[in-house]
Amino acid sequence: MNEAHLLEDARRLFAQNGLSKIGNDCALFEVADGYEIAISSDLYHANIHFPSHLPPADVAWHCLGAAISDLAAVGAAPLAMTLAISAQDATWIEALLPACLAVSQHYHLPIVGGDISAGPVALCITVLGQALKGQALTRTGARAEDEIWISGYLGEAAAGLHLLLEDSPPLTKPSAGAALMRRFCAPEARLELGQALVSQATAAIDISDGLLIDLQRLLQASGVGALLDMQAPVISKPLARFATDYPQLDVRSLIWSGGDDYELCFTAPVNNRAAIEAIGRKLNLALTSLGFVRAESGLTCKNGELPTELGWQHFASKAKG
Amino acid sequence: MNEAHLLEDARRLFAQNGLSKIGNDCALFEVADGYEIAISSDLYHANIHFPSHLPPADVAWHCLGAAISDLAAVGAAPLAMTLAISAQDATWIEALLPACLAVSQHYHLPIVGGDISAGPVALCITVLGQALKGQALTRTGARAEDEIWISGYLGEAAAGLHLLLEDSPPLTKPSAGAALMRRFCAPEARLELGQALVSQATAAIDISDGLLIDLQRLLQASGVGALLDMQAPVISKPLARFATDYPQLDVRSLIWSGGDDYELCFTAPVNNRAAIEAIGRKLNLALTSLGFVRAESGLTCKNGELPTELGWQHFASKAKG
Repeated sequence: MNEAHLLEDARRLFAQNGLSKIGNDCALFEVADGYEIAISSDLYHANIHFPSHLPPADVAWHCLGAAISDLAAVGAAPLAMTLAISAQDATWIEALLPACLAVSQHYHLPIVGGDISAGPVALCITVLGQALKGQALTRTGARAEDEIWISGYLGEAAAGLHLLLEDSPPLTKPSAGAALMRRFCAPEARLELGQALVSQATAAIDISDGLLIDLQRLLQASGVGALLDMQAPVISKPLARFATDYPQLDVRSLIWSGGDDYELCFTAPVNNRAAIEAIGRKLNLALTSLGFVRAESGLTCKNGELPTELGWQHFASKAKG
Repeated sequence: MNEAHLLEDARRLFAQNGLSKIGNDCALFEVADGYEIAISSDLYHANIHFPSHLPPADVAWHCLGAAISDLAAVGAAPLAMTLAISAQDATWIEALLPACLAVSQHYHLPIVGGDISAGPVALCITVLGQALKGQALTRTGARAEDEIWISGYLGEAAAGLHLLLEDSPPLTKPSAGAALMRRFCAPEARLELGQALVSQATAAIDISDGLLIDLQRLLQASGVGALLDMQAPVISKPLARFATDYPQLDVRSLIWSGGDDYELCFTAPVNNRAAIEAIGRKLNLALTSLGFVRAESGLTCKNGELPTELGWQHFASKAKG
C-alpha cells in the first residue's frame, strides 16, 4: 500500500460521489454560470515536510508557497485561503502569523478563515482560485508531439534542503548556499505563469515531489509517454557551486528527482513555442524545453540515464526532518 | 497566551488584509452576484480531539460531523468539502476512506479533493457552503430581549467521551451507554436546522467546546449578555441513566460545559417563538429556550449556579486522548 494505491482507492470510492476530477492539483467545481472554483488542501507536518528547526517565518513561506503552487498548476486566479494551525506552543503560532500575512499579501490571496489549536506542529492550507469554466489547466490534456517545458532552475530547493539538514555545511561560497536554502524555505508559486499558460499549454503540474515523478503523473493522466533530453535542464550557478562542494552528490539527480522546487512542468503544441518564449521573457522567468510527448507510455531518454529514484514518495521516502 | 488571545492576534493582523469576518463559524466571501461562499477549515489530531483507539469509521463521523457543523451554524447550504489526511499507517487511511464517503453522502456534501500523506494521525477538513448574500447567520446579531435557544439534548457527547475513555464502564444499562458513546462518535451536524433558521434567528453558533463557552463567544461578538435558567435544559433519558451510574459526576455541568454536542445555540426575537417551535416539529428536533439576551454584558443565571469551567479551552484543557 503506497500513496499511489491509496489515491487510486480514494479516486474509485469518491467517483461514486459524482466526482471525476480528483487527481488534479486542484479540484474544480462550478459555482456560478461561467466560473469554476479551484480548490486544494495540503497538510504539512514538522519533521516530515520541513525540518522542525526551521524558523516559523520560513515554515510559513515554504508551506504556503507550496500550497499556493497548486493554483498556479491549474492556471487559476487567486481568490482566498484558509489556514488551520496547531502547535504545542502558542508563541510559535504567534511568530508564524505575521509571516502568513506577508505571504498572503505577496500572492494577493486573503486569508479568510481557519483554525488554531494545540497539538503537534502542523499546518493545513486550503487555497481557492477562480477560472473561466473549462479553461483551467489539468494533467490530462498532453498529446503526442507536444513539447515538454519546465520553468525556472530545478534542483536548487533539494540542494538547499541538504544544506539545511547539515550542522555546518562545508561551503566555499556561503552566498550560493544561502540562495539554495532560500529556494527551499521560500519557493515562488508561479501564479502569473499558470494564468498566462491557460491559452497555450495542453497540461500542467507543479513540481513538488520531483520533476520525473510529477511529470510521470501528468503523462499517466494523459495516457501518453515522453522522450526526454537528460542534458536539457540548466544547472544554475548556485547549484554548480554546490556541486563543487559536494562532489559525491549527483546534481543531475537533484534536478530530475529532488522536489520542492514548485516550478511548473507543462506541455504545449510545438507551434506555441514562440508564444511560450514570449511569456518567459515577459515574466523574466527561464522556460526550458526538455523533450517531447510520445504516444507510447513510459519515460525514455537521450543524453543520459534516468535516476533510480523518480522523486519523493509518501509512505516510502525518508522524512525531511 | 491562550486561544482567545491568539485568535484576537490573528484577527487584528488579518484585518489589514481587508477581512472583517474572522471570528464566525465560517468565513464568508462573495463569488458571484447575490451569492456568498461560506468556508471553514478544522484540523483534528488523535489523542487531542479524539481518543487514538477510536476506530477509523468513528473518527470520520466525529471529525467530519464536527467540521460540517460550522456550515449549519451559519445556515449555509452544503456545497463541497476537501479532506487532508495523514497517518503513519496507510491501512488506517484505507479504513477511514469508506466512512468519509458515507458521511459525504449522508450530508450531500461531495468530497472534491484533498491530500493524503504519511505523518501523525491528523485530519484537516475544509467545508464549503453557499448562502444568499447577507443571509448567512453570524455571531454578531443577538439583541437585548432576544430569546436564547438550543437544539437537541446536550451533555450526551461529553458523557459518551467519558465512557470511551474508561476501560470497563460500570453501566447498569449498556444500551444507554452505547447511545451516549454514539453521540460523541457520530454527532449530527444540524444543516437543515441552520438553513431553516436563516429567516428566524438573529445569531447562531454551534456547540463544540461547551454550551457556556460557545454562547459567551456569541454574546461577546454581539456586545450583549444573558440571563440563563440553569434548569431549562432537558436531561435526556440516556444521560439520566449515566447520572445514576456516575453519581460523582454533575450532569448539569456536562450539559452546560461538556462540549462535542454539535447542536446549535441561537438567538431569536420572542415574536418568532411559534415559528421556531414549528421548525422543531418539522425537523423532529427538540428546541429548548434557555433564557434571554440582556443589554448588560456577562452571564447571569437563575435556578442554579454557573459551573466553574465554561468549556474546553485549547492550550489549557486536558486532551481528549
